[in-house]
Amino acid sequence: MTRTVFFVSDQTGVTAETMGHSLLTQFEGLQFRAVTLPFVSSIDKAQEAVRRINAVGTEEGARPIVFSTLVQDDLRLVIREAKALVLDFFEVFVGPMERELGTRSTHSSGKAHGISDSVGYAARIDATNYALSNDDGSNRDYWKADIVLVGVSRSGKTPTCLYLAMQYGIFAANYPLTDDDLESAGLPSALQPHKAKLFGLRITPSRLQQIRQERRPNSRYASLPQVQFETRVADAIFQRNGIRVLDTTDSSIEEISARILQSTGIERRVRP
Amino acid sequence: MTRTVFFVSDQTGVTAETMGHSLLTQFEGLQFRAVTLPFVSSIDKAQEAVRRINAVGTEEGARPIVFSTLVQDDLRLVIREAKALVLDFFEVFVGPMERELGTRSTHSSGKAHGISDSVGYAARIDATNYALSNDDGSNRDYWKADIVLVGVSRSGKTPTCLYLAMQYGIFAANYPLTDDDLESAGLPSALQPHKAKLFGLRITPSRLQQIRQERRPNSRYASLPQVQFETRVADAIFQRNGIRVLDTTDSSIEEISARILQSTGIERRVRP
Repeated sequence: MTRTVFFVSDQTGVTAETMGHSLLTQFEGLQFRAVTLPFVSSIDKAQEAVRRINAVGTEEGARPIVFSTLVQDDLRLVIREAKALVLDFFEVFVGPMERELGTRSTHSSGKAHGISDSVGYAARIDATNYALSNDDGSNRDYWKADIVLVGVSRSGKTPTCLYLAMQYGIFAANYPLTDDDLESAGLPSALQPHKAKLFGLRITPSRLQQIRQERRPNSRYASLPQVQFETRVADAIFQRNGIRVLDTTDSSIEEISARILQSTGIERRVRP
Repeated sequence: MTRTVFFVSDQTGVTAETMGHSLLTQFEGLQFRAVTLPFVSSIDKAQEAVRRINAVGTEEGARPIVFSTLVQDDLRLVIREAKALVLDFFEVFVGPMERELGTRSTHSSGKAHGISDSVGYAARIDATNYALSNDDGSNRDYWKADIVLVGVSRSGKTPTCLYLAMQYGIFAANYPLTDDDLESAGLPSALQPHKAKLFGLRITPSRLQQIRQERRPNSRYASLPQVQFETRVADAIFQRNGIRVLDTTDSSIEEISARILQSTGIERRVRP
């Protein structure tokens, strides 16, 4: 049986989805159907949301689960009337925080994923543009970088740089170890002045072969001897130059990014 | 007075930061200092976290606020001993969900931002690679696109495509209206077979001028007559071809993306 889950928000729904997803992963084996209702910012829209939620409950014979991040009291009261398990994020946490901080919250919507923090938002966009123009060894404006990821082709450098930029406003460049670099087995000259910023991404040969095989089936690029050679020389370069490394084989870009922040202590430009 | 806020997680901390950030924005005017403690995955690490939290509280003379998404009971019990306001995400919500679903949760850590959903994760990475190779009018493999964003230079196309890809696994290309396109004022031929996938991004001339001025000060590109001309012709192209449009002037990439999903009904490849 599939249970329908609603994410109800007066803004983008990103917070509601994040919290809901996090909880749903705790119930393995159950099937959920997810519906996001963003921009529920008026009584009318809240009532329409309740009608949709109730209709699904009637149709499926099981009450939906609703993750709500609505902030305004009048809208929250409407949603709580839905025939559903309503998990009301603000109701639970805002009260204790108000008591702790000795002040009332603003109960105003739409602050978390908008551009009200214009400095932080601009930093994220600037960092994203930086990551794009300094991707894959291009541009090489490493003086401006907070970090330069180094690794063989398809070790996870590009998506990690983009995530570091968009999530944390970090200026992340990346440099792929090319055939020439690997033949000479030395630290590429473009990287030498920036040793302290370098961070190596490792990946196991078998996983690397699998990824490359999907991109260029049966090529030399995807052959086992080639990936074994590349990963071995890359490891040697990292070790000889005292470059910090992280194995990305079983990690998501979120995990790689969080590990990099933790192990380097880089200051993010955007703070929660 | 600045209050220190800790985000404690057994994994990346993304969920804890998202929920905490969302709540902190409700307390405007107060100053917070944010500290993320990710990968708190053992009793030892939890005890170390408590020591850090308590030390900050003693030093600052105000107890910290702790947003915890720890899942394992033994770790949560340790954190709850901190001399802080501990807001325990799982404690609050898992109980009601277990009763509703009639089953115990797994209480296992690290599912939300890892790669346990390998199909969804691969979709996000594939979509990111697609966005990169079909950025800024390059490649033009629009048959594969879920959506093609169209607009003048610096209307927000690229970061929005990347966000749609990384967050939702959506294949988003973008096409910049070039000088030639704007001179002819017709729908570019590359876009004509894909009308149903086109989505226009608008921006006000004054905001566009500001953004361009930062990039290329005092250029023709950043001049008011030029941005007025471009935005006017772009609007005409959108209107004449029945292309849906969204004004990006005051919106973040999260907001633009959520609006696009809502107004097009595009199915995401990654669900919460």
